[in-house]
Amino acid sequence: MKNVTTARCVVCGATFDPVPGLHNCTVCGGILDIQYDYPAIAKEFTKEDLAANPDTSMWRYRPLLPIEEGTVPPSLRVGGSPLYLADRLAAELGMTGSLWVKDDGQNPTASLKDRASAMAVAKAIEAGADTICCASTGNAASSLAGNAAAAGLKTVIFVPKRAPGGKVAQLRIFGADVTLVDGSYEEAFQQSEACIKEKGYYSRNAAINPYLVEGKKTVAFEIAEQLNWQVPNYVAVSVGDGCTIAGVWKGFCDLFSIGFIEELPKLISVQAAGCCPLNTCIETGGTLEPSEENTLADSIAVGVPRNPDKAFMAVTESEGVTVNVTDEEILAAMRLLGRTQGVFAEPAAAAALAGVKKALADGKVPADASIVTIVTGNGLKDTANGIKATQEG
Amino acid sequence: MKNVTTARCVVCGATFDPVPGLHNCTVCGGILDIQYDYPAIAKEFTKEDLAANPDTSMWRYRPLLPIEEGTVPPSLRVGGSPLYLADRLAAELGMTGSLWVKDDGQNPTASLKDRASAMAVAKAIEAGADTICCASTGNAASSLAGNAAAAGLKTVIFVPKRAPGGKVAQLRIFGADVTLVDGSYEEAFQQSEACIKEKGYYSRNAAINPYLVEGKKTVAFEIAEQLNWQVPNYVAVSVGDGCTIAGVWKGFCDLFSIGFIEELPKLISVQAAGCCPLNTCIETGGTLEPSEENTLADSIAVGVPRNPDKAFMAVTESEGVTVNVTDEEILAAMRLLGRTQGVFAEPAAAAALAGVKKALADGKVPADASIVTIVTGNGLKDTANGIKATQEG
Repeated sequence: MKNVTTARCVVCGATFDPVPGLHNCTVCGGILDIQYDYPAIAKEFTKEDLAANPDTSMWRYRPLLPIEEGTVPPSLRVGGSPLYLADRLAAELGMTGSLWVKDDGQNPTASLKDRASAMAVAKAIEAGADTICCASTGNAASSLAGNAAAAGLKTVIFVPKRAPGGKVAQLRIFGADVTLVDGSYEEAFQQSEACIKEKGYYSRNAAINPYLVEGKKTVAFEIAEQLNWQVPNYVAVSVGDGCTIAGVWKGFCDLFSIGFIEELPKLISVQAAGCCPLNTCIETGGTLEPSEENTLADSIAVGVPRNPDKAFMAVTESEGVTVNVTDEEILAAMRLLGRTQGVFAEPAAAAALAGVKKALADGKVPADASIVTIVTGNGLKDTANGIKATQEG
Repeated sequence: MKNVTTARCVVCGATFDPVPGLHNCTVCGGILDIQYDYPAIAKEFTKEDLAANPDTSMWRYRPLLPIEEGTVPPSLRVGGSPLYLADRLAAELGMTGSLWVKDDGQNPTASLKDRASAMAVAKAIEAGADTICCASTGNAASSLAGNAAAAGLKTVIFVPKRAPGGKVAQLRIFGADVTLVDGSYEEAFQQSEACIKEKGYYSRNAAINPYLVEGKKTVAFEIAEQLNWQVPNYVAVSVGDGCTIAGVWKGFCDLFSIGFIEELPKLISVQAAGCCPLNTCIETGGTLEPSEENTLADSIAVGVPRNPDKAFMAVTESEGVTVNVTDEEILAAMRLLGRTQGVFAEPAAAAALAGVKKALADGKVPADASIVTIVTGNGLKDTANGIKATQEG
């Protein structure tokens, strides 16, 4: 990791050697952020290098990723997902600016979480671990199980019982040791942390392990590269734990730091109206209050976000906007995206588009803006809600 | 279509002008095959051109595809699916040769059928159609609906009621006009043909429309290119209607004809033991007898294959082998593939691997052979059987 300098606590600022097993600040317990030597990267890494690189996966951005030079990442092809210019969709939303759909449901296990999980597996390999453990609303778990299976590692998974059938089926097919927790995501999280502590497993809990955001940030790298380094005005992201939006922000900031882009986008932080603790915290500037998990968008039904600090900073630093959307608005966005663009999004993934629609209608985002909306997971993960969406249409 | 010469009947040999709307021989009713001017293609199309082409989709092989130069294909990114070297899996099968998994579940609507549907939509656009119709066991329909939606075209779909929930959810999300037929695939097919005749819709029925095989053949192009033009000894394909295996063979033959490859693979034709009319026909050299559709692998549950001629020729010309696998063997292959390689295949897709395993065990294929097994659809399409697979493991 010649380009990584330190792991820095986002709360107290303490810095540490970035060893694979260190996940939290040993001073205050805060979340760590991986720091890079951007001037050195800017010198050795060029847009021309990228254009000539035949690797279309997330690992094409290796100079900006925190893995050792000798590490062989897991074999699934993660990243390189398509970015679609969605003119018909933009027109239906009354936009005069451009709208793009980044379909990250086109990942090996069908969600953006593959970017984090591939990184987790790479770091677990570096740490010499043979078993990785996490709690998840579903996608993080299935992506971890798939990427670990492809690398020959074992996985121990805790998911709330409410997780959709598609995600649980994936877990079991990938050979994971699965515990269905009769409770919320928070309870699954607590059980996983206890298990990690007891058994010494490698942790893939996203808000704990600082490397996962580093995997997720590759979605921003791809968006910028696919737009030929012209950054959109806004990027809409559905928000649960807060790690994905933090990753998106980190990615754009990285590119800005090495001079690949000259502007930064504003983030649109979209949460479900029935579970929006982070947006409420951002809107009020107050402290984070736990919320009920009252939405059918299971992937963002996170009552106690585990990465509030990074997500809070991402939205505020970008001068972004917050939007909360109802389940009905989410289902309508699923239909809209499928009908106009041929993309089937799971509810949490369509939530971002629902947020774009609402932000436009409310005047929070101007109609002539250029916007990228990220589809974070495939609708095939949760066909029950896919069918529900069409029945209510 | 400067490289296309004629559309030639595979039964009587009559040749026709390759107009988009002509789908069957007007002399004998046989299936047509699109013919190319291979010497001309060989002159203008090089491996170096390909290596320098940043388009990773199926359209990178445009000189070998039957669309007009000005046609803009539908926008979904079809093709460019990963090919994984599966060493752990090969070892578990007792192989000393190499085994690769071509994961075509990584297509926009999660099946290989996207290759055919993208072509169908391109040809429908050329024909000036605004509505496309087909019958399908599920994947062809959902891929057609998705690709058509992305191009702004309407779809009318007939599927057997038994189609898994994931596939029906996709159809409805993509805005298709769906009729669930209370009967077999054959009955759905008859209803769709009647509808096409009555309404004048563009037909995407795979064994009728000769362009679909031309889309499917791109999977063979990719396999050859990903293996740096070293052709494997065997390619295993699950077989229902027969169009996919015909497409795979056409693709390798095309590459052979233009000198990109120096050998041809043998095909492993895998059918479900409960529905194997094509393999029986190949094995006995006799006529095709309709079969019951008695397998949980819905995508290959085709009692009356609509493309027997091309499939028969593909397997016999390649000096291939036939294998029939039970539902239990299919479910076991789903687990094996997931656990060792992190790939979740739908039953019909895992059938190909089950066939490889059986062909190795029976000595039909030697252990030192190099084999590619094609995963034709994502397990998320049919999570009920994914769960069943893990419960029986």
